[in-house]
Amino acid sequence: MCTAITYAPHAHYFGRNLDLNVSYHEQVTITPRHYPFNFRRMGENANHYAMIGMATVVEDYPLYYEATNEKGLSMAGLNFPGNAVFKPEVDGRDNISSFEFIPWILGQCATIEEVKERLATIQLINLNFSDALPLHPLHWIIADSDTSVVVEPMADGLRVYDNPVGVLTNNPSFEYQLFNLNDYRHVSTKLPANTFAPTLNLDAYCLGLGGQGLPGDLSSTSRFVRATFATFNSVCEPTEASAVGQFFKLLDTVMQTRGLNEAGDGTYEYTIYSSCCNVDDGIYYYRTYGNNQITAVSLFHEPLDSDRLITYRLQYQQQIHYEN
Amino acid sequence: MCTAITYAPHAHYFGRNLDLNVSYHEQVTITPRHYPFNFRRMGENANHYAMIGMATVVEDYPLYYEATNEKGLSMAGLNFPGNAVFKPEVDGRDNISSFEFIPWILGQCATIEEVKERLATIQLINLNFSDALPLHPLHWIIADSDTSVVVEPMADGLRVYDNPVGVLTNNPSFEYQLFNLNDYRHVSTKLPANTFAPTLNLDAYCLGLGGQGLPGDLSSTSRFVRATFATFNSVCEPTEASAVGQFFKLLDTVMQTRGLNEAGDGTYEYTIYSSCCNVDDGIYYYRTYGNNQITAVSLFHEPLDSDRLITYRLQYQQQIHYEN
Amino acid sequence: MCTAITYAPHAHYFGRNLDLNVSYHEQVTITPRHYPFNFRRMGENANHYAMIGMATVVEDYPLYYEATNEKGLSMAGLNFPGNAVFKPEVDGRDNISSFEFIPWILGQCATIEEVKERLATIQLINLNFSDALPLHPLHWIIADSDTSVVVEPMADGLRVYDNPVGVLTNNPSFEYQLFNLNDYRHVSTKLPANTFAPTLNLDAYCLGLGGQGLPGDLSSTSRFVRATFATFNSVCEPTEASAVGQFFKLLDTVMQTRGLNEAGDGTYEYTIYSSCCNVDDGIYYYRTYGNNQITAVSLFHEPLDSDRLITYRLQYQQQIHYEN
Amino acid sequence: MCTAITYAPHAHYFGRNLDLNVSYHEQVTITPRHYPFNFRRMGENANHYAMIGMATVVEDYPLYYEATNEKGLSMAGLNFPGNAVFKPEVDGRDNISSFEFIPWILGQCATIEEVKERLATIQLINLNFSDALPLHPLHWIIADSDTSVVVEPMADGLRVYDNPVGVLTNNPSFEYQLFNLNDYRHVSTKLPANTFAPTLNLDAYCLGLGGQGLPGDLSSTSRFVRATFATFNSVCEPTEASAVGQFFKLLDTVMQTRGLNEAGDGTYEYTIYSSCCNVDDGIYYYRTYGNNQITAVSLFHEPLDSDRLITYRLQYQQQIHYEN
Repeated sequence: MCTAITYAPHAHYFGRNLDLNVSYHEQVTITPRHYPFNFRRMGENANHYAMIGMATVVEDYPLYYEATNEKGLSMAGLNFPGNAVFKPEVDGRDNISSFEFIPWILGQCATIEEVKERLATIQLINLNFSDALPLHPLHWIIADSDTSVVVEPMADGLRVYDNPVGVLTNNPSFEYQLFNLNDYRHVSTKLPANTFAPTLNLDAYCLGLGGQGLPGDLSSTSRFVRATFATFNSVCEPTEASAVGQFFKLLDTVMQTRGLNEAGDGTYEYTIYSSCCNVDDGIYYYRTYGNNQITAVSLFHEPLDSDRLITYRLQYQQQIHYEN
Repeated sequence: MCTAITYAPHAHYFGRNLDLNVSYHEQVTITPRHYPFNFRRMGENANHYAMIGMATVVEDYPLYYEATNEKGLSMAGLNFPGNAVFKPEVDGRDNISSFEFIPWILGQCATIEEVKERLATIQLINLNFSDALPLHPLHWIIADSDTSVVVEPMADGLRVYDNPVGVLTNNPSFEYQLFNLNDYRHVSTKLPANTFAPTLNLDAYCLGLGGQGLPGDLSSTSRFVRATFATFNSVCEPTEASAVGQFFKLLDTVMQTRGLNEAGDGTYEYTIYSSCCNVDDGIYYYRTYGNNQITAVSLFHEPLDSDRLITYRLQYQQQIHYEN
Repeated sequence: MCTAITYAPHAHYFGRNLDLNVSYHEQVTITPRHYPFNFRRMGENANHYAMIGMATVVEDYPLYYEATNEKGLSMAGLNFPGNAVFKPEVDGRDNISSFEFIPWILGQCATIEEVKERLATIQLINLNFSDALPLHPLHWIIADSDTSVVVEPMADGLRVYDNPVGVLTNNPSFEYQLFNLNDYRHVSTKLPANTFAPTLNLDAYCLGLGGQGLPGDLSSTSRFVRATFATFNSVCEPTEASAVGQFFKLLDTVMQTRGLNEAGDGTYEYTIYSSCCNVDDGIYYYRTYGNNQITAVSLFHEPLDSDRLITYRLQYQQQIHYEN
Repeated sequence: MCTAITYAPHAHYFGRNLDLNVSYHEQVTITPRHYPFNFRRMGENANHYAMIGMATVVEDYPLYYEATNEKGLSMAGLNFPGNAVFKPEVDGRDNISSFEFIPWILGQCATIEEVKERLATIQLINLNFSDALPLHPLHWIIADSDTSVVVEPMADGLRVYDNPVGVLTNNPSFEYQLFNLNDYRHVSTKLPANTFAPTLNLDAYCLGLGGQGLPGDLSSTSRFVRATFATFNSVCEPTEASAVGQFFKLLDTVMQTRGLNEAGDGTYEYTIYSSCCNVDDGIYYYRTYGNNQITAVSLFHEPLDSDRLITYRLQYQQQIHYEN
C-alpha cells in the first residue's frame, strides 16, 4: 500500500511512499501548461497549470500517482480497495474518471479553497482508461501550503474531510484512521514518568521508552499512526538539504522492507519509490528502493509553456560514492 | 543507543547504526598490519591483522566503534549503561582496557573459535584512555562468517553468549533480549488466519496485518525485536548492490529519526551514521544522517603492510543527483 | 462505562456490567403486564409484556438500565457520551423519550424482527424525565434468542446495526468497534506457531501466549475486544449452574476493579453490579461489587397480571459461608 | 498456571489463583501443632506452628499448594516448568524435598528474617513423595506482614529474591518478570495527557485510556504485569468485607476463564480455585470456579494443639441466593 505525508518545517513539502509488489514503469513526468488534457466527458483543456510528479505515461497520457502544480497544490492517489466506489455519470455534474482526477484538480486549482469548489460539482465516474487499464480503487490527499483534505469515493457518495494531520495511508476510511489516533495520546518522545506504580522503583533503562505503544507493523493503520507521530515530532535544520533529508527519514519510518510483507504468490510489497516535492520551488526529489541517493527534477527548469510531456526515467541503480 | 546486525544472503555483511545525540568526529579508519598497537598492560603489537571500521582517532590511536579485519572477523561496541562493569587488573590474565578490546581481538583472531580462546584469558580492566576520555560502558558483538557471540562485562564477571540472531542493541542484557523474542512468536510476514473468532467474519483489510504486535518505538528492546524480525525475513537479490541496499533497509527499520527520541537538555538521539561492511571483500559502506547516498571505502585498496593509519572524513553533505 | 454481552451455550443469556462511580439506588424491578406506562407523547399502555431488569424507580416509574420481557426479548442502555443526540419531536412519528425507550420496545415486541418495525417509525426525543433527571447519552443493544441489534441516536439520525458479536460497550460508535476487531484476527486460545523466525528456536514458555495482543485496559474499545474474544471462545457445561457461572466469568474479563480507573475528583469507576438474565426462563441473576454471591429473582414467580411494580433491594453485603 | 498476590490495605492478605486443567481433590487443610511431620531426611517434627491452607492429603500427609501459619507467615508454590531443578542430597545441609518445603518453612519460621536463615542451609532435593507422585517443578513466594521473598531452585543453585511487588506467577524467572515491569512505566489509572502530538486535538473518548499498554492475555508475563498494576492501585474500604472482596477482584484480573487457554488434548486451563487468607487472623477464604460465593475457614476456631489433620471439602456447587 502507500503512505503520503506533508511536512512544513520552513518550506513546504509533500510526498509519498509507493508500496506495491510490482512496478508500472513510472517516470518523473512534467506536464507543461499547454499539453492538451482530453477529458473523456469534459472536453479538452490545453491551458492549465503545469505540474510535476510520478506517472505512468500510456499513449502520451500521464497517469499520475501524485503530482504538484506550479501553484504548489499537490495531490496523491492511494490504494483504497473494498471501499472506493466509482459511480455512473450524471447530467449536470463534472463527470471525471478516477484516472483524470489529478489533472482535473491540479490543472485548475491553486488552493484547497478552490479545490473544495471543484469537488462540489464533481462526479467521479466509473470509466476505465482502457480495457487493459481498469480503474484502481483509490482515495486522495490534496494539499496546499496551509492545509489538506482527503477525498474518499464511498458507496454513499464522495466524502471530503479536512485533514488535520496531513497524512494518508490506505484502508480503512480516513475518519476511522483519524479516530484511531486517540488511542496513542500517551505516546511520547520523552521518557515516561512512572505512573504504573509510583512507589515501586521502575528503571527507565533506555531512551525511547516513551514511544512504547507505537505499532511497528506495516498495516495501513499502523503506518498512519507512525507517520503522524513522526511528522508531528520531527526536528530538522532550516535548510533545504536538512528538510529534504528529514522528509525521507519520515517516510522511512513507514517504509516497506522487501520480505516483511507478503502479497501472496511469492511476491512482497515494498516501497518502490519515495518522493518529496518542495512545493514552493517545484523541485521533485525521489529515491527508488534500489538506489539510496536522492535524485531531483525541477519543474521550473523546463519549458512550461510547451505542449509536450517531459519525462525522466527513474534511477534504479544504486549510486555508490567510492572513496578509493 | 545503537543497533548492530549481521546479514548473510549470499555474501556476509556486518554493520550498525550509531545512535547518539552528539558526534565525536569519527572517520572511516584503516589500521594496516604494522601500525604499532601499544597495549597499556600487554605491550606492543606491530604485526597483526589489518582492519577497517569507524573510529575516532585520538593521538594517532584508533578508538574503534566497530571494525572488520582482513579475515572477515567483525566487532562492534554498543552502549550498555548501568550494566557494564570494568574490573581491576589481575596478574596472569590478559589485562585489556575496554578501549583496546577491538584492536586486541581483531588484531589476533580470524574466527569466533579463536575469539573464544582469547576471551578465556582476558580481563577487561578499568583503565581510561586519558583523563579526558573515560571509558564508555559497552558490550560487544563479534561475528565471523558463520556465527556470532555477545560479550558482556557484568558485575559478576565477563559473560559470553552465543548469538543465534546476529543482532545486538543495548540494555538490558543480551540474555533478557533473547528471551523477550519468545513473546513475538506469532508475528508474521503473512496475513494471519482468523483465530480470534473463526465463526465471525473479520476482514483482512490490508496487507501487513501479520506484523501486528511488532513494537514501533525506539527503545533498545523494541529495536532488538524489529531488527531480528527484519533480518530473518529479509529478501534480496544475489547481487552486491541489492544486498548492500537491503542491509541499509534493515538498519532503517531501527533508525532513529531526529525529534522522536529526546535525550534531555533539548537534544535528540538520532542515527549519526549507518555502516555495512562486506566482510568477505573488506568493503566498508556507510551513510550519515544528512547524506542518503552510500559511500564506500575498500580495505584491500590500501597499502596494508604500512604502519600508518589511513582515515577518510565522513561525507556529511547530502549528495543529490540533479537531473535538470 | 459498561459492557453488555449475550451468550447462548444451550440456553440464552443476556446481561451486563454497570460501571459507574456512583450508584443510583437501582433495584431489581418487575413490571407486570398491566402496570400503566404513560408515555409522554404516545399515551398510556396498560396491557403489555411483563419485564424484569434493573431500574431506578422514581415516582413509581421504572427507569430501566436493562431488562428482559416475558418473550425473552432483552434490551440494555449503555453510556454513549458525546455521540448520542436526541431530537425534537416530529409529527407522524412515534415520539419516545430516551427514558421510555426500553418500556416502549419491551412492552410491545417479542422478536428483533418486530423491533425493527418499531424502530422504523420511532423518533427518540429530547425530553427529560424531570428537571432533576435529565437524559443520559445512551445507545442500546436489543437481543432476542437468535440475534441482536445496536441502536445509536447520532446527530445524523438513528442508526440501527445488526450485531454479529452480541457485545456492546461505549464510545466510539458500534461501527468503529466492530471494525476494530479486525486488528485481532491473530489472537488465539492456542499456543501460536513460530512465524516470527521459523529457523530460530523460540520457546513457548507458558500457556496463554496465543492471547498476546489482547488489550488489558478498561477503555471501552479494549473491553469490546476482550468481551468478544471471551464470549466466542467460552466453554461451559450444559447446566444452568455452569452457564450462569460462566456468564459472570465472561463479565469478569471486563470488570472494573476499584482503583484502576479514575473518574476524576477522587472517585473511581467500578462495576457496581453485574447481571445475567436467563431469557428463556425469565430468571434475573446479579452480583454487586461488594457481594460475590449470585442472587436470583424469577419473573414468572411473580403475579404478572398485576398493575403494581415489584422491586427487590440489592444484596450489597458480602455473603460469606463460614465453615467453622 | 497460577498467580499469587499479597495485599495490605489495613490488615494483611495472601492468596492465589490455582490455574490448571485438572483438579487433584484439594481441600482446605489445617495442620495442628502436634501433627507429626516426618521429614524424609530431617526426622520428625511434632511440635511446630499450626498452619492452614489448600492441600491434597495423601496417606495422611498434607501436600500444600499454599498455606499460612499461626504467625502469619505464608507460602505458595507455583508452577515453574523447565526452570526448576531439584538436586541430589548433600551432607551437612538441610535436605528437604520440594513437597516438604512448605511444612519445613511454615513449621519453624515466623518471619522472613527467620526464613532467610533457614534458606541459608537448605538443599532442595530430588526426592519424590512416591512413585505415583513425582515432584512438580515449582518456585515459591513466602511472605510475612512486612515483606516477601521468591525462592527459585535453578540449575545453578537456589536463588532467593526480595520481592518488592508481592506478586508471583510462573515462567520465566522472577528476575525477568520484575525487569519486564519497566516496560509499563507509562500505564496509568488516569487519563493520559496528549503527548503524541500536543498541537493535534485528540479526544480522550472514554475513561480507562490510561491503562492502554496493559496486556490482556493469560501468559504468565502478562498476568504478572496486570496483577502488580491492580495490587498497587487497588482501593478498598477499611473493613474485612471490603478488603476480602477486593482481594478476589484483584485475583479476577488474572483469572483464567474456561475456554480461553487451551492446554492441549481438548482441555483448558482455568482457575480451579482462588484463595485469600487474612494472615493476621488466620481466616482462609476461597472460591471455586463453579461457586462464586466466598467460603471461609478459621484456623483459630480449631483445636490447634491436636495431632490430627483437619480438612474441609471444597464447595464446588454454585450457591445462589433465590429471592423468590
